[in-house]
Amino acid sequence: MLMHWIGNGYVIPDYTIFTGMNEITQITSLQNPLVKQISTLREKSRERRKSGLFVLEGQQELWLALDGGYILHTVLLNREICRKSDFLALLKDLDHKIPLAYVSREVYQKLAYRKTTEGILALAHAKNHSLEQLKLYRDNPLILVAQAPEKPGNIGALLRTADAAHLDALIIVDPKTDLYNPNTIRSSVGGIFTNTIALTDTATAISFLKKRNIAIYCAALTASKMYTEVDFTGPTALIMGTEADGLSEKWLKQSNQNIIIPMHGKLDSLNVSVSASILIFEALRQRKV
Amino acid sequence: MLMHWIGNGYVIPDYTIFTGMNEITQITSLQNPLVKQISTLREKSRERRKSGLFVLEGQQELWLALDGGYILHTVLLNREICRKSDFLALLKDLDHKIPLAYVSREVYQKLAYRKTTEGILALAHAKNHSLEQLKLYRDNPLILVAQAPEKPGNIGALLRTADAAHLDALIIVDPKTDLYNPNTIRSSVGGIFTNTIALTDTATAISFLKKRNIAIYCAALTASKMYTEVDFTGPTALIMGTEADGLSEKWLKQSNQNIIIPMHGKLDSLNVSVSASILIFEALRQRKV
Repeated sequence: MLMHWIGNGYVIPDYTIFTGMNEITQITSLQNPLVKQISTLREKSRERRKSGLFVLEGQQELWLALDGGYILHTVLLNREICRKSDFLALLKDLDHKIPLAYVSREVYQKLAYRKTTEGILALAHAKNHSLEQLKLYRDNPLILVAQAPEKPGNIGALLRTADAAHLDALIIVDPKTDLYNPNTIRSSVGGIFTNTIALTDTATAISFLKKRNIAIYCAALTASKMYTEVDFTGPTALIMGTEADGLSEKWLKQSNQNIIIPMHGKLDSLNVSVSASILIFEALRQRKV
Repeated sequence: MLMHWIGNGYVIPDYTIFTGMNEITQITSLQNPLVKQISTLREKSRERRKSGLFVLEGQQELWLALDGGYILHTVLLNREICRKSDFLALLKDLDHKIPLAYVSREVYQKLAYRKTTEGILALAHAKNHSLEQLKLYRDNPLILVAQAPEKPGNIGALLRTADAAHLDALIIVDPKTDLYNPNTIRSSVGGIFTNTIALTDTATAISFLKKRNIAIYCAALTASKMYTEVDFTGPTALIMGTEADGLSEKWLKQSNQNIIIPMHGKLDSLNVSVSASILIFEALRQRKV
């Protein structure tokens, strides 16, 4: 059996065929090492961190990842599920660029979350999300800082909002969840690929913002200033804590102004992605964008 | 073995004890009919609809349900988990009012989502959510209408926002999910009990709003009017469609004004609870509350 280089790792194909200019790997066995690797990457954040690889699924995610400068390791196609015109467009686009494997329906269904749709999966390289390499291109940035968000669904919703608002950056401090958790990717509907995201700790984030004269506005249930009474038209960072514990003292001490979203009911908090979105869209309203 | 009336149904206790004025049912067997009934109600919306009963969990949910006028069928306590002072306060409050059962740790852990916290569960009666019985108490109501929301997590987040904004009503049209789905209750963090909620169909909802001269503002990606340019200070209903399909033609035809939240990124929509919250809090800002 031949061994093939695919991206930066070995893949043992079941067999290979030649289409036009490409030699294409065929995978039909659930025991194929690549199949096993993808299964593991789906489930284990430790494996994702170790390998720097993650799995994406469907055409929207694939296009957005390519558009966002992500480097693909391998694209897996099931030709029964993937509609023909889409498939041809994809092949044309990927020709010579990205290793391609055809997978059987059984293999696809083992690996995919959405069992019968689209027929496209890819293994991709995680980006470098260090704050040090974050560049701000606008004079008047609007940044969201989320401290230790946990639920993938909330992080996904934050990413959708960050995309809609075209934020200059989403900075996650003290992350509790792997950014490339499949549920985060899925609930972001591709927002994970379209945003500028940095992962760091509180002290580094504060120093980053202070150095650039970006005002720090901490959302806090104990704040006395209504969020609608604050001017967000200058360089602004909106800082959100966790639903359970709010923001840490470190942030509150460095805050230019603590702000509150009024709570008129009987509960004491909003969903974290909802709170963030209310603040972000108030900033956009003030900025008239 | 004695049969006991508990609420409106029979419960077969394992045995009973007497504390002060109360005869309290003891349940230690997983085969107890009440235990089986609660398990089924957790899992099956059909059973919830048939019986008109649902399960709530923890002190916050219990207090908010009582405060919201919900009628409890049975309260189940595990005395090892439930902290003593809370337990005494609960007993005092419930004395003579609501049937109480003590359950073993094993039974509690079978029935509870949050295995080790609080030690309190209750079976409660669903409310009547018909639009016909919905009363509006303010001259200038602010109402959210959500068409066919599906994900319990989104409905929960909507309920939290509706509570925070003290909306006059949340109207769910063409519901796809049982309101008392355990994940909806949980993700609403009690908001299901604090809000005025009506379930109905589109035609009935439109006629309800028209009759009361409540302006209909449909959120639509095809709308040309920015949501910040619309006056929400009069009687207002904000209408949200599904993320997948938006609003039905029926709504768009009856709209006083279609409105759009600007999308500055590469994705084409926001999370439905996020969109709703942005609109609702813009209305509150305009109303200066």
